[in-house]
Amino acid sequence: MKITIAQLNFHIGNFEGNLELMKKAIATARSEGSDLICFSELATCGYPPRDFLEFRDFIRRSMTVIQALTELSDDLAIVVGAPTVNPEIEGKDLFNSAFFLYQKKVQHIAHKALLPNYDIFDEYRYFEPAKEFKTIPFKGKKIALTICEDIWNLGNENPMYTVCPLDEMIAEKPDLILNLSASPFDYVHAHDRIEVIRANVQKYKIPLFYVNSYGAQTEIIFDGGSIVMSPDGQLFDELAYFKEEIKTYDLDTVIAGGQQHEQRKEKIDLIYRALVLGIKDYFSKMNLKQAILGLSGGIDSALTAVLAADALGPENVMGLLMPSQFSSSGSVTDAEELVRNLGIKHEIIPIKEINESYLKQLHPFFKDLAFNVTEENIQARIRGMLLMAFSNKFSYILLNTTNKSEMAVGYGTMYGDLCGGIAVLADVYKTQVYELAEYINRTKIRIPLNTIHKAPSAELRPGQKDSDSLPEYSILDQILLQYIEFRKGPTELVEMGFEQSLVDRILRLVNKAEFKRYQSPPVLRISTKAFGSGRRMPIEAKYLY
Amino acid sequence: MKITIAQLNFHIGNFEGNLELMKKAIATARSEGSDLICFSELATCGYPPRDFLEFRDFIRRSMTVIQALTELSDDLAIVVGAPTVNPEIEGKDLFNSAFFLYQKKVQHIAHKALLPNYDIFDEYRYFEPAKEFKTIPFKGKKIALTICEDIWNLGNENPMYTVCPLDEMIAEKPDLILNLSASPFDYVHAHDRIEVIRANVQKYKIPLFYVNSYGAQTEIIFDGGSIVMSPDGQLFDELAYFKEEIKTYDLDTVIAGGQQHEQRKEKIDLIYRALVLGIKDYFSKMNLKQAILGLSGGIDSALTAVLAADALGPENVMGLLMPSQFSSSGSVTDAEELVRNLGIKHEIIPIKEINESYLKQLHPFFKDLAFNVTEENIQARIRGMLLMAFSNKFSYILLNTTNKSEMAVGYGTMYGDLCGGIAVLADVYKTQVYELAEYINRTKIRIPLNTIHKAPSAELRPGQKDSDSLPEYSILDQILLQYIEFRKGPTELVEMGFEQSLVDRILRLVNKAEFKRYQSPPVLRISTKAFGSGRRMPIEAKYLY
Repeated sequence: MKITIAQLNFHIGNFEGNLELMKKAIATARSEGSDLICFSELATCGYPPRDFLEFRDFIRRSMTVIQALTELSDDLAIVVGAPTVNPEIEGKDLFNSAFFLYQKKVQHIAHKALLPNYDIFDEYRYFEPAKEFKTIPFKGKKIALTICEDIWNLGNENPMYTVCPLDEMIAEKPDLILNLSASPFDYVHAHDRIEVIRANVQKYKIPLFYVNSYGAQTEIIFDGGSIVMSPDGQLFDELAYFKEEIKTYDLDTVIAGGQQHEQRKEKIDLIYRALVLGIKDYFSKMNLKQAILGLSGGIDSALTAVLAADALGPENVMGLLMPSQFSSSGSVTDAEELVRNLGIKHEIIPIKEINESYLKQLHPFFKDLAFNVTEENIQARIRGMLLMAFSNKFSYILLNTTNKSEMAVGYGTMYGDLCGGIAVLADVYKTQVYELAEYINRTKIRIPLNTIHKAPSAELRPGQKDSDSLPEYSILDQILLQYIEFRKGPTELVEMGFEQSLVDRILRLVNKAEFKRYQSPPVLRISTKAFGSGRRMPIEAKYLY
Repeated sequence: MKITIAQLNFHIGNFEGNLELMKKAIATARSEGSDLICFSELATCGYPPRDFLEFRDFIRRSMTVIQALTELSDDLAIVVGAPTVNPEIEGKDLFNSAFFLYQKKVQHIAHKALLPNYDIFDEYRYFEPAKEFKTIPFKGKKIALTICEDIWNLGNENPMYTVCPLDEMIAEKPDLILNLSASPFDYVHAHDRIEVIRANVQKYKIPLFYVNSYGAQTEIIFDGGSIVMSPDGQLFDELAYFKEEIKTYDLDTVIAGGQQHEQRKEKIDLIYRALVLGIKDYFSKMNLKQAILGLSGGIDSALTAVLAADALGPENVMGLLMPSQFSSSGSVTDAEELVRNLGIKHEIIPIKEINESYLKQLHPFFKDLAFNVTEENIQARIRGMLLMAFSNKFSYILLNTTNKSEMAVGYGTMYGDLCGGIAVLADVYKTQVYELAEYINRTKIRIPLNTIHKAPSAELRPGQKDSDSLPEYSILDQILLQYIEFRKGPTELVEMGFEQSLVDRILRLVNKAEFKRYQSPPVLRISTKAFGSGRRMPIEAKYLY
């Protein structure tokens, strides 16, 4: 028996587009003599469809895709994820389901039992969990069909679930496990995924075909990396990261095993590729072409420019240089060097005159009050406005260049440097920004060395440095990582050896900045805990500040 | 037996403050000779604590409040909601619990079984549902202790749950039901709540004491309206809306029944009071005092100014008038009349010069390209920046004045009129804005009649009217209500009699504007479906556009 894995990039709500993608993959599978093709979780409608699931029209349109696929399933079985209506009156209205289509009929519908409802996931919001589990007979074999999280309740120290679907099906002696996933990238996930799949294969002693989607859905990036694992626990194949792949496997060869093919997993390389795909898909799925960003001569904007140029082509990237009287001379020359290195477009607009016109209009009210954060913010906001003016006039989309360390402690101006359609680096700590810059420059210096080596500064007042108001990033990022990614509280942080007053100060800054993050652009997610839908915090709380 | 209901305004994460509130209520209960005082759901930490629940430190601090209350429970039983740790390895880490404290001991801990996970609710994200149900013996009576949603699986046509906690407990013949809630306001909720409680009382034939919290937690407004219902199905008492109340009842008198005391429920009056409380608590819980807003002479900003003046006192409200060359003469005179009517502060800053300085700097790039939305947005953004400059310099918080109709179709400028710390009217349709203005003016004309009667306009280009680019609000709002609140899709809307092309156009506008709403301020929630955490939509989707 031949089984085809189709690792595709679906688009939420684009039913026609998704069907076209699947039709092409079906043609490929046929040409390779496949018996069964398997698409990923909720492939008809894209993942995560969020509250569109509450619209009957949305479910109906998804079902027309299922009908079209059913017609195509004469001699080729098609396994595909889609939402289905729960026929029972009690419980949630939908199931997260997998259709098994063959001989132009729906042969079986399996429902997902383990519904992730943490971090970015909200599946209990929409779906009723499966309560029945049956294998599917196909060409003399029995298939245990599962969906994503269904195979994740194995080998965890602190399991979130009290059932295990494969334990229910194993009595029927299935010959293989199929798993349809929409499992998002973070820079530690690929390893965890292989270990979970291995735990299943070693427990049940049958091969597992794991089909993931790839592609970015605004902030959430799916990395692909679909897996075929032999009963010997070896990685028979791991599909590419961050790109389409359609591959066909002979089941007996997979069962025989003895093959090990794993993708390269260098953390910084994966982060780079995730961010490039995140930008690329944001633009392509929104039907946009050109990006704009402010170039300050600093490392965050330089790195963002590189990622944008690599994602969209340098000809589609515009850098705006907006020096003020507080800008260092390097601010323009470093940015110009970057522009030359990348071959992107650029323009220069000094903000001095506009700044003066604000200060003049405000003088009757501000009088002789001292220069403070107000005047700093005015500069940042003038830059945001000029970028948005270019965006509006020439259909550029503004890329936000804020990094995660800044976003965490609120070191940024709302409606100023916090503007943008998508925040490219806001899940990348400052120390990781440096690592990425070094990675970028490995083969060829594209980010000017002066940009990398100078002390970080917002350049909003004379001689300003980030280190005037923030601890060194090497310390700051360690505390932030523990607080944000690992949810360590003040007591635990002090026990880990961080200084009490520093911990208190940083946690207070993070919690206080919640109102800023609430209005920030969506953040490309590369870690296990990104700002945005995966981290839900009250604004008005009085906790740790 | 005497039972005290304490309807209080808790503050998320403010453990000391919440304990102080409870101590005062306990003193009141003692002075009234009460046997049992009941606080609301998650009273120790405030509701909704969101991802703070994932911090052990947060749970520990909540437990110190429980310990302090336990010490106070010698001769008075204290019933209080708090998160507890799930001792089992499998399942979610926490329960949403109610402590029954008496004689300085924890006598019983009940867990919530029905965990809302829709709209603004995310309880499956944190909590494991209860599986065991037991009544609590107290002074010769048996109490069925339930938490919020636990009593809501009754009398629904389409129940979301498959269990019913009271059905499990009723075999033990309880004498009364206690329900600890944190049930947010929307303008139809009060009626639904009474009906659900009545369905329980009529089914089980015992009295029900329903304790709700009141107060706003950023966007979510709790209205109080706690209920005591007699076994005869009559509303023995309904506590006040939107304010603190601590009331003690004699159980035998409640059981005897024959009393009916219901609060006034005029929809527009409830909306008004909800919005005033929303503003008031946003400021008090963030430890802020003064609000600023732009006054355009239009009805949205006028209404917001009234609500702010009523919430914070007119002396704490500053209106900024920022006319341009496109502003009608009424824009300033109507706003000045409003300022006089309310007694708020105001300043005037024309935006002409700043606008010209932008256009001058942009001219080398824009050249002779026609005036379009770019130049409109520049004006809106200059106003946003001036408001933020005042906000930064004088510690005002900017109130956003966008209404729900505009927010829905994206009729607003990001980083311009969409700025603000909190969006006061963004859950109020334009037609409801007029109703509220009329309500405000019932006793005394505070909103100038010219402001109410002139045609709505953004005044960003010569002679502009909202009706140039939008359908009449009376039609628009009907379609929006069906699409947003009732999730009717295009087919259903056309079946309801709306014109196909209009439906397509409006739904497209709403879906396209998702990227704007993502970065908008939190929205005071008064309807069953407000923008924000209760409505989660993909940005990048291609559905209906």
